[in-house]
Parts: sequence; C-alpha cells; structure tokens
Amino acid sequence: MTEFSFAIKSRDGAARTGEITTPRGLIRTPAFMPVGTGATVKAMFPEDVRASGADIILANTYHLMLRPGAERIERLGGLHRFMHWDGPILTDSGGYQVMSLAKLRKLDEHGVTFQSHLDGASVSLTPERAIEVQCLLGADIQMVLDECTPFPATHDEAAASMQLSLRWAERSKQAFAKLAKPGQALFGIVQGGIYPDLRERSVEALIEIGFDGYAIGGLAVGEGQAAMLKVLDETVPLLPQDRPHYLMGVGTPEDMLQAIARGVDMFDCVMPTRSGRHCQAFSWGGKFNLRNARYAEDMTPLDPESACPAAQYERAYLHHLVRSNETLGAMLLSFANVAFYQELMAKARAAISEGTFATFAEEVSRRYRAPSEEEEV
Amino acid sequence: MTEFSFAIKSRDGAARTGEITTPRGLIRTPAFMPVGTGATVKAMFPEDVRASGADIILANTYHLMLRPGAERIERLGGLHRFMHWDGPILTDSGGYQVMSLAKLRKLDEHGVTFQSHLDGASVSLTPERAIEVQCLLGADIQMVLDECTPFPATHDEAAASMQLSLRWAERSKQAFAKLAKPGQALFGIVQGGIYPDLRERSVEALIEIGFDGYAIGGLAVGEGQAAMLKVLDETVPLLPQDRPHYLMGVGTPEDMLQAIARGVDMFDCVMPTRSGRHCQAFSWGGKFNLRNARYAEDMTPLDPESACPAAQYERAYLHHLVRSNETLGAMLLSFANVAFYQELMAKARAAISEGTFATFAEEVSRRYRAPSEEEEV
Repeated sequence: MTEFSFAIKSRDGAARTGEITTPRGLIRTPAFMPVGTGATVKAMFPEDVRASGADIILANTYHLMLRPGAERIERLGGLHRFMHWDGPILTDSGGYQVMSLAKLRKLDEHGVTFQSHLDGASVSLTPERAIEVQCLLGADIQMVLDECTPFPATHDEAAASMQLSLRWAERSKQAFAKLAKPGQALFGIVQGGIYPDLRERSVEALIEIGFDGYAIGGLAVGEGQAAMLKVLDETVPLLPQDRPHYLMGVGTPEDMLQAIARGVDMFDCVMPTRSGRHCQAFSWGGKFNLRNARYAEDMTPLDPESACPAAQYERAYLHHLVRSNETLGAMLLSFANVAFYQELMAKARAAISEGTFATFAEEVSRRYRAPSEEEEV
Repeated sequence: MTEFSFAIKSRDGAARTGEITTPRGLIRTPAFMPVGTGATVKAMFPEDVRASGADIILANTYHLMLRPGAERIERLGGLHRFMHWDGPILTDSGGYQVMSLAKLRKLDEHGVTFQSHLDGASVSLTPERAIEVQCLLGADIQMVLDECTPFPATHDEAAASMQLSLRWAERSKQAFAKLAKPGQALFGIVQGGIYPDLRERSVEALIEIGFDGYAIGGLAVGEGQAAMLKVLDETVPLLPQDRPHYLMGVGTPEDMLQAIARGVDMFDCVMPTRSGRHCQAFSWGGKFNLRNARYAEDMTPLDPESACPAAQYERAYLHHLVRSNETLGAMLLSFANVAFYQELMAKARAAISEGTFATFAEEVSRRYRAPSEEEEV
C-alpha cells in the first residue's frame, strides 16, 4: 500500500510546486479541488472532471451523512465506487456546513447537535463521528472537526473558538488513529480569526499533535482580501514546510494566485461550478456573464485560449442556452470553468518551475482586476 | 452536392430497413430522432447524442423562430453550426406547437396568428413563413405547415381540417421550390383523424403534389394505441413505398415496434429525454422509476444489457442523484434513454434484415407490456 507523502519539486519565492502521493494517485500542487458536494461535481460527468485536469475532488461530509448516509455509502463499496471517481477524494469534516446550513444548532464541548436541513431530523456531530463518517466514506484526505470562527469575532471569542477547535483536533487525531486505513491522511485546521497571536498558538498546538497536512480555516468568510492575505503572510511561514498547505473555501483566481505566492498548495471552492450554473464564465480573458445581450451574436468561442472542449462552444450559443434556461448551458459553463481553474493551476505550476510566477500571476490578475464587461478579451 | 434519396435495404413483412442519403450524411431506418427543441437535445452534449447512435435529430421551428429567431440563426451560420450538430436535422413546421403552446391563436385560410408563449409578441405563421424559417435554419428535412386535427373531431371537422392542410401543403411545396437549397427535402403530412376515407383522400392529394417523404400526423393525440394502429393499417399501405414514412411524435417502445411492423421508417418523441428529467429509465429490462426506494442500495447497473456509458452507472447512485435533484441524474438518464431508443432501432434494423422482426418485437413488447415495478429485471 502506497503511503501518503508530499514532495516539493520546485520553489519560486514562497511559492512551490509539489506532488502529494496517495494510494489513489498523485496530486500535483498547487492543486484546485472541484467541489462534489453530494457525491457529484454539479452538472459534470466524472470523466469530464478528470479530463479537466483535476487530480482530486472534495466531497462534503455534512451533505453525505444526511443523504444518502455514510453507512449506506460504506455498504455500497465506498464513495469512490459510488460516484465513479477513482482518484483521491478529500472530505471536509462537516463543521462548516453545520454552521451555514443546519437549523437549531447546539454547540458544546462534546460536539454539535443540529437539525438536518433536509428533513429536520436531529443529528449529532462530534470529532469522533466526523472521522468515523469520513472513514466510512473512504476519504483519502480527511479533515479534523473544527469550529469555523465567524467574522467578525472579538479576540476573546476567537481565542475560545480556536481552543475548542484544538481540543477537537486532538480528539479527531485519536479517532483517526483507531479507524483510518493505511495511506489515508488527516489534516489539521488552523483557526484564530484575524489575530496573529491566536493563529500562531493554533499552528504550534497543531504541530504538536502532528498532522499529514495543514489547512488554514476561517478565511473567505467576509474579512476581505487584504485581511485574508495578512493572515496568510503571518501564518503560512509558521507551517511545516514539508507538509501540504490547504486554504479552505478559496476562491477567486486572484485570491488563489496571491495565496500560491505565499506558499499555499491546495484550494477548493464551489465558484467555478456555482458560477457555471449562474451564467458566469471564467476565461483567460477574464470573467463575464453570458446572459449579457452583447453575446447574442458573438461567434467567438467561450474561451479561445482554453483547450477544454466545452470552451470551444460559441458565446452566441451559450447566450441562447442560458437565456432559455437549458441544462446544456450549465453543463458547458461548469465544465469550461472547472477546466479554466485547472489550467490556471497547471500554468501556475509551470511558472513556478520556470521561476516566472510573479509575472504570470500579475498578468492573470490584471485581466481579472478589471471586472468591467467592456474591457474583456 | 449529394441529392436526397431513400433506398430500401431489406424487408420483413411490411417492415423495412433503408438508408436515407442527405448531404449531411446517412440516416439508417427505422430511425429515431431525438428532439432538440430549442437547439439542444435537453441535458445532452451533442457528441453524446451522436455517440448514442443517432443519425439525425429534430428541432422545433416554433421554439427557434421565437428564440433566438430564425434570422439570427441564419446570420450565425445556420442551425447545424449554431448547435454543434453536423448530421442531418429535421425541423417540424411549427404548427403543432402553435396549437399546444401559444396563446390567443387565430387560424384562417392564410395561416395562424398567435401570441408567443415567451413574451406575448404577436407572431404570424403561414405555409410560406414556415418554409422560410426552416430554410433560414438550414434544415435538411423540412415539413409542410399543417393543422394537427384535434382528437376527438367529427368527420366534418376532420375533413375541413384535412382539406386546409392540403391547401397549405400545396403552398408549402411552392415556397420550398423557391427557397430550398439542393439536397434539402420536404415531407408532406397525412391528416384525416381516425377516418379512413379522409386519410385516403389526404394521401392521394399529397402524392399528387409530390413529396420526398410522407409523414402521418394527427396521431398520439389521445386516440389510444388501437385507434392509432388502425389508422396505420389503413394508411401506410397507401403511401409511396419508395419514400420514407414518418410517424410524428411517437412514441413508446411498443408503439414504435408496432409502427415499424406496419412499414413506418422514422420517429421522433420527447419521451426519452423528458422521462430522463423525471427519473424514468428505459432499459432492456423495461421501464422503471429511479426515485423508487427499492433502488436505494441496488448496485446493478442502470441497464446491464446496454453499451451506453451512462447505463453503466449503478441504480443506487442514480437513485441518490434524482432524490437530491442533482443535474447529473437528468444527464445520465437522458443519455441512457436516448441510447436505449437508438439501440432499439439498431436491433430492429438487424432483426428486419434477418427476417426475425416479429419475434424481436414480441420479446421487447413483453418486457414493456408489464409496467409493474415488481416484475422488472
């Protein structure tokens, strides 16, 4: 059985390329993980997710434990077989969705009890149950249960929340040691809000517990890009440099490039698929909305610089599809957007190898910084 | 430029296999045409429509003339380029949808005026405009504008309606002679309700005008299978045997097999795609609904007898997807259903060639005759 491992291949400033080895295959970093919330990357065939260049996908513990249920997926042979994805899968711990989706939450030292947003059933999630669920799913990379500290939070609130997350991280690690199979990995999650001393304390304690990788949580929750980058500036250098660094829930192309420049290796975000269902295209020329009347007779391919088959469809056709609420519009835009995110990672990796990452990132950000539809392409 | 032509390859009783030659490729008959209403076969990539075995698709003149507009599609290079389908396309005349979808219709000798179901705009459709629109779209096989006689209708009503359709057929033919390009074909439509004398009169008059193929219209509108088959028994033998016979808007696997046995060559129906969006699967084991709780842990492939990639997905996964309203469920079921319809046609063609069509049709119908979920597979 292949062990989980991480090897850095090249560096360019704080940015680095690497390879995560898992029993289910290599993950080239920096890596973007498309989000397969309910055992499907929305509106995409699994083979197209793979064809887009994705090495790994993320699935949501919260959604899957409620429907179809973790025990059911285990009986059916595990999540990979269930959803026809044979590459690595990272699962979150469910904590974030409990806070954002569930009703009537009650959080205490033990864990969190909540009402399912589907049927109102009372469900309990503890650090131990979060790991049990992720093991039942068969996730290759698992996350500790944490409390995603809300923004804004006072220093006292952020400190208490971070300390609770640390105690849960310890319990998660113990549960993982009992339940996990060889080759599976567990990541810790740094919390502490926007307070450098709390982030530092969180990192130190997590390193003491010891994890296969380190995620930075509690960002992209409304603090703004400047505050997020400040936290990264203060936190990433403290992380073990020989382990993967994962910035959870991020993000826009610009945010990811800024984070890569600071030493982040992994990302996940619903943006490419959610935007794809809402008529938004990410392209090498920038971001634009296909509903706009200007595209009604524009026979330019969606993205002339993309190699994705979906990006070869003309904008006039996509305009027609999204105006007509045709499913094919969401299918093509989701595929093209995920492919753009993967191409962005591939080109970032190439630029880091070549020592030209800063130039590359500036060039892409320039295209994305001007959101006016007038200036696209 | 290839001429439009039809050649019969084999016969088995009244059933026949053949090949329609068009400038955009061969159509093997009996043929099922997936319906691409608004320039998309719903929830399917064009390459998967082709991979399913479809030689030709149908598009709806009514929908396309309202959105994005026939003149716009013409400016963009025609329907084939617009929707990324390079095979033959048959367009209906729009008359049926005017009757079923539009509001405030006013029908007279000249044509029909109606309010668009999209924006309430007043639109006129005449035999001449129906042909003009189909030529703007660039349809390979075009249909005359007719009035689909409602069911039930008295003999007098059906006769008056059929006579109006004949006068419109004559005008359609004249417009087509002026506007069509070499290689394009025009089909006439037999009307007359359930009255044999009217159907006979309709056929005679259409033959006198002269068409490249002959459709049987006004069926599958509530008359029931027995009445429909009786009309086919009385009508198909009167049609020119060296021209394609097209039964419009049909249908179920059983209805198509019964019609093939009576000499019908072409079909179209929204059933495989519409059912696919409503959790229904067509398979070699029969028809079933994936929402049914019995499939929650059924790891049988959707259709073990199908070669379609989508039919390899396990029922438990499809059950989960449709219960979760995930787009991928509709994508997989639409693909698998269209592929089943195409495999049904392919096996029907093979059986006719081998002289075993009656046995084949009886075997399939047996599986489909018992709609109980208990008896499937």
